[in-house]
Amino acid sequence: MPDELNSGEGAPAAPEKRFSDGLVRGVLEGDFRSVARMITLVEDGGSGTSSLLRELFPHTGRCFTIGVTGSPGSGKSTLVDCLASHYRGLGLKVGIIAVDPTSPFSGGAILGDRIRMQSRSLDPGTFIRSMATRGHLGGLSRATADALIVLDSAGFDIVLLETVGVGQDEVEVARAAQATLVLVVPGMGDDIQAMKAGIMEIGDVFVINKADHAGADRVEAEIRALVSISSRRDGWKPDVVRTVASEEQGIDLCAGAIERFRAFVTASEEGRGRELQVQRERLLELVRSRVLADLMSRPGCAELVEALARRVMSREMDPFSAADELFACVCGSSGDSRESK
Amino acid sequence: MPDELNSGEGAPAAPEKRFSDGLVRGVLEGDFRSVARMITLVEDGGSGTSSLLRELFPHTGRCFTIGVTGSPGSGKSTLVDCLASHYRGLGLKVGIIAVDPTSPFSGGAILGDRIRMQSRSLDPGTFIRSMATRGHLGGLSRATADALIVLDSAGFDIVLLETVGVGQDEVEVARAAQATLVLVVPGMGDDIQAMKAGIMEIGDVFVINKADHAGADRVEAEIRALVSISSRRDGWKPDVVRTVASEEQGIDLCAGAIERFRAFVTASEEGRGRELQVQRERLLELVRSRVLADLMSRPGCAELVEALARRVMSREMDPFSAADELFACVCGSSGDSRESK
Repeated sequence: MPDELNSGEGAPAAPEKRFSDGLVRGVLEGDFRSVARMITLVEDGGSGTSSLLRELFPHTGRCFTIGVTGSPGSGKSTLVDCLASHYRGLGLKVGIIAVDPTSPFSGGAILGDRIRMQSRSLDPGTFIRSMATRGHLGGLSRATADALIVLDSAGFDIVLLETVGVGQDEVEVARAAQATLVLVVPGMGDDIQAMKAGIMEIGDVFVINKADHAGADRVEAEIRALVSISSRRDGWKPDVVRTVASEEQGIDLCAGAIERFRAFVTASEEGRGRELQVQRERLLELVRSRVLADLMSRPGCAELVEALARRVMSREMDPFSAADELFACVCGSSGDSRESK
Repeated sequence: MPDELNSGEGAPAAPEKRFSDGLVRGVLEGDFRSVARMITLVEDGGSGTSSLLRELFPHTGRCFTIGVTGSPGSGKSTLVDCLASHYRGLGLKVGIIAVDPTSPFSGGAILGDRIRMQSRSLDPGTFIRSMATRGHLGGLSRATADALIVLDSAGFDIVLLETVGVGQDEVEVARAAQATLVLVVPGMGDDIQAMKAGIMEIGDVFVINKADHAGADRVEAEIRALVSISSRRDGWKPDVVRTVASEEQGIDLCAGAIERFRAFVTASEEGRGRELQVQRERLLELVRSRVLADLMSRPGCAELVEALARRVMSREMDPFSAADELFACVCGSSGDSRESK
C-alpha cells in the first residue's frame, strides 16, 4: 500500500499537495508521463486518489471507449493494434488499456503480454498501458473506470480497452466501455456455445476474426442467429463483421460498425440508458468498497474478522450469524466513527 | 425476485414456515428434489434464504469440494464426468455444480450446457446442477458458497465445481473449493502464457488433458517450470498429471493427486490457513452485500441513486462526491433503520 496516499488523505502536507497539483496539471495537458503515473496511483487503489480524480472529472466526457473482448487466441491484441492505427490515421489521440487476469494472490503482471505490447508503443501518439487486478473482487473494474477518467481528461479521443478472457470480471470491465466488440474465431468447438451465452448481450459489435480460416461461415451464421433472437433492453441489433486482423483486412468495416453504434449510444434515449446504468452501478460499487474500507480501518476490526472466521471454520458459528455481528459493527458505530474524524 | 422469500423474512406466516421446515428436513435427508429447490432459492438470492442456510450449516464439514477450471475447450466437463464416475465407484455420493459465465443482463442459463449435462444425470447417485450469475458482482461466488453448504449438509461426500473460463470471477469461484484443478491442453498458443499467470497460484493440481495431442511435452515442461519457481504462501508444490479424459486415461493418477492435496489441507496448519482465508473473505463479502441490500431497501434510496447517477452523467457532479452522499446515507441512518424493525 502506498503510504504517501494514505497519509495524504488525512492531512495533506504542502509538498504532497504541490506534487498532486503538478500531476493533475500534467494529466490535463496530456503529458504521457503524468498519465502513466496517475494510472499507477489509481491501480494501487489508495484512498487519496479520489481527490485527484475529482479534479480531473469535470474535464471528461469527450472520449469514446471501445472494449475489445473474446477468448484467448481470438486475436484481440492484433485487432486493437489495427484499430489504433485506423484512429491514428484519422489524427485522433488513442489510448490502449490491456486488462490482465492476474492472480488474485500475488498481484503480479503478465510479462509476456507486456513484452508483446512493446511493439505497439513505437507510435508516440498512442498511449499503452497494461492493468492488473490487485486482489479484491471489483478492484479491477474500479481501477479501469478510474483510468478511463484519467485518459478522458488527458484529451484522448479514443480508448481501446482490451480484456483477456470471457469471465464475469471481463464482462464487468467491458461494461465500463461505451461500445463492446466481441471477437469470435472459426473452429472454436462446442465451448463457443457457452461463451456466446455469456457475451451475447455485451457485444455491441461482433467481429469474426481470422475470417480466412475454415468455419468462418458457420460461426458467422451462429452469431447472426443468436443476434436475431436476442432482445436487448435498448433495442440495439449488433452488427456482425469479418476481419483478418493479422492482414489488416476488414478494419474499416469494423470501425464503421463501431461508428454506427456510437451514433446510437450518443444520440438516442435508449442508448443513453446504458451509460446511466453504468454510472448507477459504479456509484453502488464505490459505496460498497468504501463501507468495507471504513470497516477494516477501525481498531480491532481485523482481529474481529479473524476471530469470527475461526469460529465459522470450527462450526461454532454459522457464517450468517458471523456476518450479522460484523454488520452490527459497521452500522452500529459508523456515525460515531465519522464524527470523531 | 421471489416474493415468497422477501415476505417470509419480515413476518414468516405459518404455511411458509412449514414449507421451510420441510425443505430443510428434505435437504438434511439428502432428498435430491429438496436439494435442487434449495439451490434455486440461494441462486435467486432472496434474503430469506440465510435463515434456512443457518439451519443447514451445523450439519456441514464432511464434504470435500474440488474445483475444476481451465479455458474453453480444455475438456473440463469430460474430466468432471470421469472423476464423478471414479468417486461413485468408491461408493461416494457425488454432486456436480457447473458454473456458467452467464450474461449479467438477462440472468439466463446456457441451454447447450444443460443439454450436454443430461448425459451425466443418468446415475441416480450423482446430483448435477448448473448455476448462473444473477447480475451483480460477487453474486456468483456467494451463490456457489451457499450451494456448497446445501450439498455438504445433504450428505454429499464430494462436490465437483466446474467453472467455465479463466477470468477473475472463475478464480473467486474456484477459491470456494477446497482443492482446485487447473486444466491445460497442448497447443494453446501464446495465450497460455496469459492464462498461466492468472491461474498459477490457484492450481493445487495441474492436469494436462488431451495429453495424446502433439505438444503435451512442451506444455508439461512449461507448467513444471512455473510450478518450480512459484512460491505459494502455504508452501504447497502442485502435482502435474496427464490425462486423456475422453478415453478415461489418467483418472486414477488425477484422483491420487487430489487425495495428496486433501491430506495437506486437512492435516497441516498451512493447509488449514487456506480455509481460514476463504472464510474471512466470505464474511467480508456477506457484510458488503448486506450493506448494499440495506441501503437499497430504504425508501427513496433507489431514487437518490438514480438522481445522483444522472448528475454524474451530465458532469454536474463527480462520481466520488456522489458516492460520498450515498455513503452518508448508508452510515448516517443505519442505526435508526435497524431499531425500527
